[in-house]
Amino acid sequence: MEKPSLPKGTRDFGPAQMAKRQFILENIKKVFQNYGFQPLETPAMENLTTLTGKYGDEGDQLLFKILNSGDFLKDIDQAKLEARSSKIITTDISEKGLRYDLTVPFARYVVMNRNEITFPFKRYQIQPVWRADRPQKGRYREFYQCDADVVGTNSLICETEIILMIKDVFAELGISDYSIKINHRAILAGLAELCEAKGKESSLFVAIDKLDKIGEEKVKEELRARGFSEGNLIALFEILNFVGTTAQKIEFLTSKFLNTPSGQKGIADFKEVLNLLSGYGANEEHVEFDIALARGLSYYTGCIFEVKINNVSIGSVSGGGRYDNLTGVFGLPGVSGVGFSFGVDRLYDAMEELKLFPKEAQISSQVLIAHFDEQSKQYGLRLLQQLRKNGIASEIYPDSVKIQKQLDFANKKLVPYSIVIGSEEVKSGILSFKNMKTGAQQKIPLNEIISIVKTNN
Amino acid sequence: MEKPSLPKGTRDFGPAQMAKRQFILENIKKVFQNYGFQPLETPAMENLTTLTGKYGDEGDQLLFKILNSGDFLKDIDQAKLEARSSKIITTDISEKGLRYDLTVPFARYVVMNRNEITFPFKRYQIQPVWRADRPQKGRYREFYQCDADVVGTNSLICETEIILMIKDVFAELGISDYSIKINHRAILAGLAELCEAKGKESSLFVAIDKLDKIGEEKVKEELRARGFSEGNLIALFEILNFVGTTAQKIEFLTSKFLNTPSGQKGIADFKEVLNLLSGYGANEEHVEFDIALARGLSYYTGCIFEVKINNVSIGSVSGGGRYDNLTGVFGLPGVSGVGFSFGVDRLYDAMEELKLFPKEAQISSQVLIAHFDEQSKQYGLRLLQQLRKNGIASEIYPDSVKIQKQLDFANKKLVPYSIVIGSEEVKSGILSFKNMKTGAQQKIPLNEIISIVKTNN
Repeated sequence: MEKPSLPKGTRDFGPAQMAKRQFILENIKKVFQNYGFQPLETPAMENLTTLTGKYGDEGDQLLFKILNSGDFLKDIDQAKLEARSSKIITTDISEKGLRYDLTVPFARYVVMNRNEITFPFKRYQIQPVWRADRPQKGRYREFYQCDADVVGTNSLICETEIILMIKDVFAELGISDYSIKINHRAILAGLAELCEAKGKESSLFVAIDKLDKIGEEKVKEELRARGFSEGNLIALFEILNFVGTTAQKIEFLTSKFLNTPSGQKGIADFKEVLNLLSGYGANEEHVEFDIALARGLSYYTGCIFEVKINNVSIGSVSGGGRYDNLTGVFGLPGVSGVGFSFGVDRLYDAMEELKLFPKEAQISSQVLIAHFDEQSKQYGLRLLQQLRKNGIASEIYPDSVKIQKQLDFANKKLVPYSIVIGSEEVKSGILSFKNMKTGAQQKIPLNEIISIVKTNN
Repeated sequence: MEKPSLPKGTRDFGPAQMAKRQFILENIKKVFQNYGFQPLETPAMENLTTLTGKYGDEGDQLLFKILNSGDFLKDIDQAKLEARSSKIITTDISEKGLRYDLTVPFARYVVMNRNEITFPFKRYQIQPVWRADRPQKGRYREFYQCDADVVGTNSLICETEIILMIKDVFAELGISDYSIKINHRAILAGLAELCEAKGKESSLFVAIDKLDKIGEEKVKEELRARGFSEGNLIALFEILNFVGTTAQKIEFLTSKFLNTPSGQKGIADFKEVLNLLSGYGANEEHVEFDIALARGLSYYTGCIFEVKINNVSIGSVSGGGRYDNLTGVFGLPGVSGVGFSFGVDRLYDAMEELKLFPKEAQISSQVLIAHFDEQSKQYGLRLLQQLRKNGIASEIYPDSVKIQKQLDFANKKLVPYSIVIGSEEVKSGILSFKNMKTGAQQKIPLNEIISIVKTNN
């Protein structure tokens, strides 16, 4: 007899977790739709030609690949087989892989449907992605992403609305202590210019992205090893260590960027986003200008975002930015877009840690009908249908067992109300109605029960 | 430059299709929850030890298998490699596969969580499944299933509620011309006894399952080839060809099954389901007792169901039945359950064919704000937030382009209303509000717009 198990890094979501996950997802969906985003779903499997080379070498290693069907070894060159190189043979025996994120499939979709799409195109997409990563706390091999992107416009209204959507989602979820960190690739480019990083920009960004993890000294060591001079480091950290309000940071950087056009462009964009924000009647609360924010993904070209929930173990729950050429690799250059993504699993963990889920978050019946005998059970069926017709999720205990067992079932499933039926109830139509939380009981007819349950729903 | 494409048998669902799919799925979910079913999700990937051997040899061939990560060829026996047997090598280079249905993962979940689950356990599950089938019309390699199962009770209340749920879902979807075909494995066993099929029951069921496709003569030929006598065939077709109401069929079969206990048990169960149905105050409309219904899957042991929408090309959209030992293979015998499944893709196709989707089924903004100049745009931002705060999904055209282009955008996206803002509107606060369907325009303040849109939502 085999003992069943789950693949490493994957999880089942039972009813209790599903209720909480649906609470998160429904709220995100509601906000996305409120801002005019439309849903898209793409298949779990993509051709490997679509996926490979889009996430760097490391990403390619982490793609789950699907074995070709049928006799996949049939046409393999004998020499290749004898060479026993898994890497070389992979492309011969596998044509498809599981999607690694929602961005590349979205870019593919836009290119394939460019003639039908009305631009600017605002889409949201909520689906699982798969990565053959080493599983650890907060990192899974299957996890959901919730993306919203706008493509086909350069307008900074889109960046501003990302900030507004994050605020709306967190308000719905009850998360109040968080920061929306913002930076701009052009500001980073200006910074690189100021510390003479020409040709080694990415080493610079990779290093400063680690600032809050490894600290100033380690970052400096790393940069020295990459050939940055002490003068470069002084110029760099004068900026990174600047402390002040957003307005002061802008003023300070403006003075530094007098001769660096890219830096000026970044500052101008950022100021315009703040200006638009006040145009919406919104304030800068939670918005934090973070000059050290770099974000790893290389396709960003404009504003970049990262959202951190404070005082939880894994706080980074969302990120995104503007990209100018995401669809270029599929043959459609010059389509600017901006988007962001919520990590549902991290939001879930953070909300658990902050105890933000309603105590009895369950998707369950509102009423259980319990019965003393066959006749009562038969009588209960008709009541059941009345409850359901009134939109009250209900169930009857299906077997004829002791009343206590039926009520225990209601308690375990967190069903808030029960109706107990015996011969007296069948005769009179006056039912024993019990609030399972308080234990309070009353004898009332069905129409009163319906109005009580509806009122408290 | 690579031209992107989709793997064979897979599809993207753009905004228009998603709106229709969500309409179907939300209604199914609502009905499932109304009957006390709770959500479950399992991972896309399962261990192949969980999947293999559960769907017959053909099913095993149709499993999508995931290539092991890393150097998967490293430990493969040289002789095995030289033998070039894809079949033998598969188990060495692949440990995981994509789920083939939702039933086996559910059984695995029940066994792994047997100590935490409150039985009877009613779960629903709406997720995609994958099969390496040859793609053809109505058959995809990735498609959604919507399953609802109850495990841990023998009560025929569950069977009855399956009928009620199907009726409720179809009422919500606007499907009115359909049949819920019902049979019982014990009735089939009785039938097998009457035509002396001992030891060749499955050939008999496979043959009669094809009756409506290939006709009586072909079925007879097939059965003769399997060793059934002319006498057997006469006994069989006397029953299969019986025409009458459900009550007449029951009476006829009761007379035939006087000496076949399994047949009697099947008839008794079926009569009890009809009795319960009237207990709920429901009638037998759409319910059809079909003695020839066999359903391929071998794990069914009690009532079996199949739902057919009439007058569409692919009408079979749902099926299910009772099984007594689904979890036995994972080490938990004796857990009876009953369940059924909707095929969303087939429902979708049938509803398209019957033109049952609302004409403008779109998930889109309700209002587009268009603007003549920068000042109008800035003014529009604040209106936008007011609309959204009132739960009215809205958007502003993000770029400064000609008004006509902005209104064309609203038309293409099927946004039902627009607000056009120029300097006059900014000054007076009286807005140009346009119904995009009728073309009717009026000049009114925002609060009136909000109440009109809310009323017509």
